[in-house]
Amino acid sequence: MFTGLSAFPLTPFVDDAVDAAAYAGLIERLAASGVDSITALGSTGSYAYLSLEERSRVARLAVAHAGATPVHVGVGALRTSHVLENVRSAEAAGASGVLLAPMTYQPLTPDDVFQLFATVADATELPVIVYDNPGTTHFTFTTELYGRIAQLPGIASVKVPALPEGDAAASDRMAQIRAALPDHVTVGISGDASAAAGLTAGCDAWYSVIAGTLPEVALRIARAAQSGDRDAALQASAELQPLWNLFSTMGGSLRVTAAIAELLGLVAPRSLPLPILGLTAAQRAEVARVSDELGLGG
Amino acid sequence: MFTGLSAFPLTPFVDDAVDAAAYAGLIERLAASGVDSITALGSTGSYAYLSLEERSRVARLAVAHAGATPVHVGVGALRTSHVLENVRSAEAAGASGVLLAPMTYQPLTPDDVFQLFATVADATELPVIVYDNPGTTHFTFTTELYGRIAQLPGIASVKVPALPEGDAAASDRMAQIRAALPDHVTVGISGDASAAAGLTAGCDAWYSVIAGTLPEVALRIARAAQSGDRDAALQASAELQPLWNLFSTMGGSLRVTAAIAELLGLVAPRSLPLPILGLTAAQRAEVARVSDELGLGG
Repeated sequence: MFTGLSAFPLTPFVDDAVDAAAYAGLIERLAASGVDSITALGSTGSYAYLSLEERSRVARLAVAHAGATPVHVGVGALRTSHVLENVRSAEAAGASGVLLAPMTYQPLTPDDVFQLFATVADATELPVIVYDNPGTTHFTFTTELYGRIAQLPGIASVKVPALPEGDAAASDRMAQIRAALPDHVTVGISGDASAAAGLTAGCDAWYSVIAGTLPEVALRIARAAQSGDRDAALQASAELQPLWNLFSTMGGSLRVTAAIAELLGLVAPRSLPLPILGLTAAQRAEVARVSDELGLGG
Repeated sequence: MFTGLSAFPLTPFVDDAVDAAAYAGLIERLAASGVDSITALGSTGSYAYLSLEERSRVARLAVAHAGATPVHVGVGALRTSHVLENVRSAEAAGASGVLLAPMTYQPLTPDDVFQLFATVADATELPVIVYDNPGTTHFTFTTELYGRIAQLPGIASVKVPALPEGDAAASDRMAQIRAALPDHVTVGISGDASAAAGLTAGCDAWYSVIAGTLPEVALRIARAAQSGDRDAALQASAELQPLWNLFSTMGGSLRVTAAIAELLGLVAPRSLPLPILGLTAAQRAEVARVSDELGLGG
């Protein structure tokens, strides 16, 4: 359940409210595509911007529309008691696992973060995915801290940032991570642009932004890697280089992915929560051009 | 109202709830001390960790117990609509101004942040303090963006991080900031360790962490600077160097200030919101030693 391709859907907004109909459509599309799991309310799902009530509702929508596809639910929040409320709502929704990033406002210490994971692992029977996303949380995990946390009962997977570039460096890093973790804890790559490299270096899972909106595109890479066809996986990813370039030049994957979903009519315009304005008109035109060039519309 | 010493009280917790009695005591203590204003729900007041309901309650408590001392209220939140809810509760409480930091999870663009301030300035008659706190928000203001935002009607003050070290460099930076702002917008220094340097370089206000818990200590520095006695201000700050050292070696001012308030019995033990564990026993012993040495108990 914590291997293969996990798709991270957007949580679309209309007039500052969750667009439940569009969200249900996104989830059904993912379930039909054959992704291995859906992770609702990841960073791409704007979890940090939602009230506890909205998060409960979105978790229920995701599970209700996912059919047989397992749904993991992001439960991160700045305050531990709010994390626990999100865990309760994920359980009530019927989630298969929870994803937890150590959100920060005040910088956290390694002990703060360890204790947060210990509290959550102790509070639920659901498997926990450790979410290392320094670009949004500004918390830096050490490999040693991965290991400490992964010893806790209930930890199922660690979602790691891009491995270092180059085959040897990536393999070395994977070996380090593996050595720190118990055998039953999987390693999932994030950072779509380098996911093929991560999978071919031995990651068990790909926690994918783009799969949430363009599942077929991500499945081509993931299935090639899973079948051991390393060259095909890397080639399929290389063909998407113009898309990865948009991610790096337009402030990350979220704004670009939302613009693609808006272009495709999967969500309404201005689908991100304010204060995030999303891409400018000129940027959207460039996204449309690249989408056309790559045939991302299907 | 946006000059002089503004004290930032802690918001103490007991068992994951706001300790209203202790909070009222902190506010009454500040009002009696003669600080020029109180800023409730700043970073020191753990605003980012509170629910909208808790924030409304804390704003009301602050105004109710501050007597004639003006109270500003921090209204920042990750989502613009939540910021606006906090503005409404600050207005309803009787605040004299609002303090707004551009909290981030996804990194924000300058246009996102400008539009956030424009939305808030347009939504309230209360004066707005622009809160530049890159250590917690991870948003970096440019001087040009200060200027764009300060042109908005209702902007009263900009809370800036420590000026560069050295008299000439500090003066140059102040001149740059002043040149970017309309005359009616004040400049307030933050970063207690360098506040004396900021005030003697011409800052109009000191937005002070330590004043929220030890107002007399901060008033000595502020009043010396305000009376033009530059040497006395710098000397009073230099005497506190062991305290500033604790701030820099123990992960910032919040954990140390909370430990001091706990030591003095102003708040109950473990007063910070989890996941922030606060200082270790060994660190608390060191804080107690420094407090004793400096006579911080009064």
